[in-house]
Amino acid sequence: MLRIGLLGCGRIGQVHAGSIKVLDDATVVAVADALPAAAQALARTTGAEIRSADAILASGDIDAVVIGTPTDTHFDLIQGAARAGKAIFCEKPIDMSVDNIRDCMDVVVAEGVTFLTGFNRRFDPNFAALRARIAAGDIGAVELVTITSRDPAPPPVSYIVRSGGLFRDMMIHDFDMARFLMGEEFVRLHAMGAALVDPAIGEAGDVDTAAVILTTASGRICQISNSRRAAYGYDQRIEVHGQKGMLRAENQLETTVELATQTGFARAPAQHFFLERYQAAYLSEMRAFVDAATGKGTADPGIHDGLQAQILADAATLSRETGQPVDLTG
Amino acid sequence: MLRIGLLGCGRIGQVHAGSIKVLDDATVVAVADALPAAAQALARTTGAEIRSADAILASGDIDAVVIGTPTDTHFDLIQGAARAGKAIFCEKPIDMSVDNIRDCMDVVVAEGVTFLTGFNRRFDPNFAALRARIAAGDIGAVELVTITSRDPAPPPVSYIVRSGGLFRDMMIHDFDMARFLMGEEFVRLHAMGAALVDPAIGEAGDVDTAAVILTTASGRICQISNSRRAAYGYDQRIEVHGQKGMLRAENQLETTVELATQTGFARAPAQHFFLERYQAAYLSEMRAFVDAATGKGTADPGIHDGLQAQILADAATLSRETGQPVDLTG
Amino acid sequence: MLRIGLLGCGRIGQVHAGSIKVLDDATVVAVADALPAAAQALARTTGAEIRSADAILASGDIDAVVIGTPTDTHFDLIQGAARAGKAIFCEKPIDMSVDNIRDCMDVVVAEGVTFLTGFNRRFDPNFAALRARIAAGDIGAVELVTITSRDPAPPPVSYIVRSGGLFRDMMIHDFDMARFLMGEEFVRLHAMGAALVDPAIGEAGDVDTAAVILTTASGRICQISNSRRAAYGYDQRIEVHGQKGMLRAENQLETTVELATQTGFARAPAQHFFLERYQAAYLSEMRAFVDAATGKGTADPGIHDGLQAQILADAATLSRETGQPVDLTG
Amino acid sequence: MLRIGLLGCGRIGQVHAGSIKVLDDATVVAVADALPAAAQALARTTGAEIRSADAILASGDIDAVVIGTPTDTHFDLIQGAARAGKAIFCEKPIDMSVDNIRDCMDVVVAEGVTFLTGFNRRFDPNFAALRARIAAGDIGAVELVTITSRDPAPPPVSYIVRSGGLFRDMMIHDFDMARFLMGEEFVRLHAMGAALVDPAIGEAGDVDTAAVILTTASGRICQISNSRRAAYGYDQRIEVHGQKGMLRAENQLETTVELATQTGFARAPAQHFFLERYQAAYLSEMRAFVDAATGKGTADPGIHDGLQAQILADAATLSRETGQPVDLTG
Repeated sequence: MLRIGLLGCGRIGQVHAGSIKVLDDATVVAVADALPAAAQALARTTGAEIRSADAILASGDIDAVVIGTPTDTHFDLIQGAARAGKAIFCEKPIDMSVDNIRDCMDVVVAEGVTFLTGFNRRFDPNFAALRARIAAGDIGAVELVTITSRDPAPPPVSYIVRSGGLFRDMMIHDFDMARFLMGEEFVRLHAMGAALVDPAIGEAGDVDTAAVILTTASGRICQISNSRRAAYGYDQRIEVHGQKGMLRAENQLETTVELATQTGFARAPAQHFFLERYQAAYLSEMRAFVDAATGKGTADPGIHDGLQAQILADAATLSRETGQPVDLTG
Repeated sequence: MLRIGLLGCGRIGQVHAGSIKVLDDATVVAVADALPAAAQALARTTGAEIRSADAILASGDIDAVVIGTPTDTHFDLIQGAARAGKAIFCEKPIDMSVDNIRDCMDVVVAEGVTFLTGFNRRFDPNFAALRARIAAGDIGAVELVTITSRDPAPPPVSYIVRSGGLFRDMMIHDFDMARFLMGEEFVRLHAMGAALVDPAIGEAGDVDTAAVILTTASGRICQISNSRRAAYGYDQRIEVHGQKGMLRAENQLETTVELATQTGFARAPAQHFFLERYQAAYLSEMRAFVDAATGKGTADPGIHDGLQAQILADAATLSRETGQPVDLTG
Repeated sequence: MLRIGLLGCGRIGQVHAGSIKVLDDATVVAVADALPAAAQALARTTGAEIRSADAILASGDIDAVVIGTPTDTHFDLIQGAARAGKAIFCEKPIDMSVDNIRDCMDVVVAEGVTFLTGFNRRFDPNFAALRARIAAGDIGAVELVTITSRDPAPPPVSYIVRSGGLFRDMMIHDFDMARFLMGEEFVRLHAMGAALVDPAIGEAGDVDTAAVILTTASGRICQISNSRRAAYGYDQRIEVHGQKGMLRAENQLETTVELATQTGFARAPAQHFFLERYQAAYLSEMRAFVDAATGKGTADPGIHDGLQAQILADAATLSRETGQPVDLTG
Repeated sequence: MLRIGLLGCGRIGQVHAGSIKVLDDATVVAVADALPAAAQALARTTGAEIRSADAILASGDIDAVVIGTPTDTHFDLIQGAARAGKAIFCEKPIDMSVDNIRDCMDVVVAEGVTFLTGFNRRFDPNFAALRARIAAGDIGAVELVTITSRDPAPPPVSYIVRSGGLFRDMMIHDFDMARFLMGEEFVRLHAMGAALVDPAIGEAGDVDTAAVILTTASGRICQISNSRRAAYGYDQRIEVHGQKGMLRAENQLETTVELATQTGFARAPAQHFFLERYQAAYLSEMRAFVDAATGKGTADPGIHDGLQAQILADAATLSRETGQPVDLTG
């Protein structure tokens, strides 16, 4: 039984608590949150104790931590947990600073603790199946990856301002997915973007619509497009072309019902809410963490993957600002 | 070069004339129609002469006839053409009387002439591909066939009255398709139907909505449903279940365009007009007739198939009227 | 908090226990099973006590029972639970004898207890959405319903023998769905069937492939087809035609991934396992039962629906054996 | 009756001759080709005379020319035809030199002759319907366009060498489509590409896999990807995102047949051959030319569109070679 301390009792912490409840070989021993009410609510649901974050890091009855606190607290918590020898699950982004992530990686490596970065989409059954088919050689060598990722609606500008920008907040998932599918690191990136959805996002210095091209040393290409708006639901699609064909994962629709009338054939919108869309992924992700922490599996994506995605997000941010491609081999 | 006399210059005659124009090894030598204007119009388009039907049957420069005249004229034309040794293409239904069809069959067989019954749907590329895959063993032995056939809108009641009823006018195509796909004759049939689309059709003694179950001696089952109405286009679908799986042919939509908005994903209606839907089938059908008439292929479906479909249509009409199943082995 | 006694700890009992665990306002207080090991296993998972069925019916701390025991025990349990004033959830079929179901209905009505029949498919989000759209008038008056229901593979013949036959064991779900969607009782039914999948099923007196047509007094038609085999997964589809168009619910596939190679475009099989396919339905069904038992909703489908479906299943069994249609108005 | 002189009797000339045959108000009077056999073959099929290209330009009985000769002959033929006052249909690319196209445009404008550039895809019923829906406001203002265009297999390297490269030979169609759909000129472009399909293409200085991002002054984005290989057919897809939703056009498959077996659901490949895929487009394109030449419609796309597409193709070629974005506003 893996004994877990849950750091952060907000929405994502609750999701992870729900997943752990379903697992037979893990339990939440203690929860911590800066807001007492949040910690109390989750303690009630899980039956866990409330402790401070520091107490959790120091607890002898805790084997692993799940970090779902605000990004600027990750650095200290990771350092502390690693030094205490605890397995670490950390939400993305690990840190806004690539240097900080490198520091964390050093400690994690030095201490030899399990570290899983919360790129939940790798665990989506559709994307995981797509990846497995690439690995099985169904389309031969990968040549071109196209990722489409669109949120149903933009977050408030107050969130945008603190988010690090679209490339670090939203496209970072797609950068990780691109690496996951391509199987070769990128050497060059060019990002373009604009505020087409909401001018206020542009005034805040960010974009809400963006496209990026990345290439690898062997010439493989990845296209990513993002938008903060999609009327028809949470748009999450992937298309991979290889020597022998194409693999693509379509959206999950709300139902399988189709209505045919004189205007044609109408199906339901895509699932709107990310918790609904990635429900299976969140559970599978926590399953993988518990397996890794208990020696039954490897921690993948690891802290190195979190670092690489952040490097790409930084490069895209720079490329969009300068209008120039960025060399990633430096 | 197969020299063809076209009997009947109405809509279907024009379709066949258009198909023959595309073929390199056939030509329309003469056309005939009870309405001089219709004959003139088609003569102009094809460059053919206008002759009487009798003259065409007697013409030494004509190898084959395409019969697209009203059903009650088929009997005499078939007899005449067969005795004149001409290859015969005849629109369905061959005749409203099964006895008459048997008489025609006797003459056709005795004279040894080519005879192709105009069950155009067998030549539809989709249904032909489906059939080919059954023949290739892709689903193993056939167990259950489901045919859905719905017209976009009912014809005028004046047409219904003279049509022989839904089973002989409309479902006859599906009876032929059922035989084509099943590969085993039916031994029992039960038809149900009602006038749900237009009460005037019911008052005229016919139905506009109907379903039939047929079974074969070995227990295989076929379901057919028909309606005179389909808001979303001309609905023409087939589903075949076998030992190893299912084959199905979906509708051809007007375009491949899909619109995604907050209400969901909307595609175009099915093609509405039967000439558009079966354009490729009509051409392929005439190609097959010319091949058969010139010794390069066999005439399939033949007059026997026209007879069998009519027998099923008669049985369905009876079954619907009596409310009882009909034994087809008698 | 609704206090539930779970009668029967087999597969379906475990499913219901899992659903109740997710609900906040219901709890399993006690479980019973003829097999001690089964009761112990479920007691461990749920934290419930083990009691005898009789003790559960007599328990003052139990408000409701969930009956998932073998069919031949239902009669006594329903009678006992109703007399004890407990809300009743009962798996289908309620009883193999229509007379017995009528007796149960009398007691349930006399005692005024909540009774929900476990026709889980009504609660499937897809089928429920389809029904809601009919109710919303999206296709106008219903004219033709086509239900396709195929199991991935046949059960052992030992199960078949005790099952009451395909119409009572399998198609009963579709009879209920047909009534649910049609909104008008059926007056006539004709069933055909054969053992095409496995001759041993035929030797056991049952069929494994069947089709039924039903009609209502106003002439509406329903087609149902069943097979004990579907290579491509658990095939569960519905198509409803009305005045203004068609509604259909397609299968849920295992993933959304599509592979395109030189042979074409390949998608995943349909979900194979009924517990996976109807996972959401089982949860929603138990939600509805708890709501009904606590006065927050109505029990629908009720015992009357269980009775009607059994009447149709009996009629289909008879029709298939005699080869004749059955009048349902008697 | 528009009297047409056909310049070039190769494959595309034959396509246009076939289209003209179908039109009632146009006829091919004369054909010309450097290869006598090619001219003879097409003369036979069309019933047209054989003349030299110069003779056609000088013929008083010819109103319009259809230019399907090698690209390096276009310049002189356009100049000659325009000065002779003839309506001009010219295959893309108009010329490999943007300066030459500008010179042609000057003459065409000065002489006031009809000029239609053969961007056939604008006339594809699917893409035309998609464009019409954008124009109708179905998705509001366009924000992001994604075009996927993949040939089934690469042409011989001998063709590649003379083709001007992938961007001018293949992606030029997509550049035109991008302008057609976006409705705003592009100001910036970045192209990436590699020879992943065949190293010999790389040795010839070209790429076979490429992706381009373009942006407009208002920040709208277009992604285009091309490959010389697609195992599953001729891949021609478009996706357009706007304020209110998405429009996409999928591939046309060879048939509508789907096979379901234990590996899942398999549909047919996309139509492989461009003449089959764009059959309707070629006919509609010639219809539009005849309309424009006879004063019944406007010539769209005109020579200006041919020029703009060539400018984008040149820029993409440069961008790919330098690795830098290209400013298009200069």
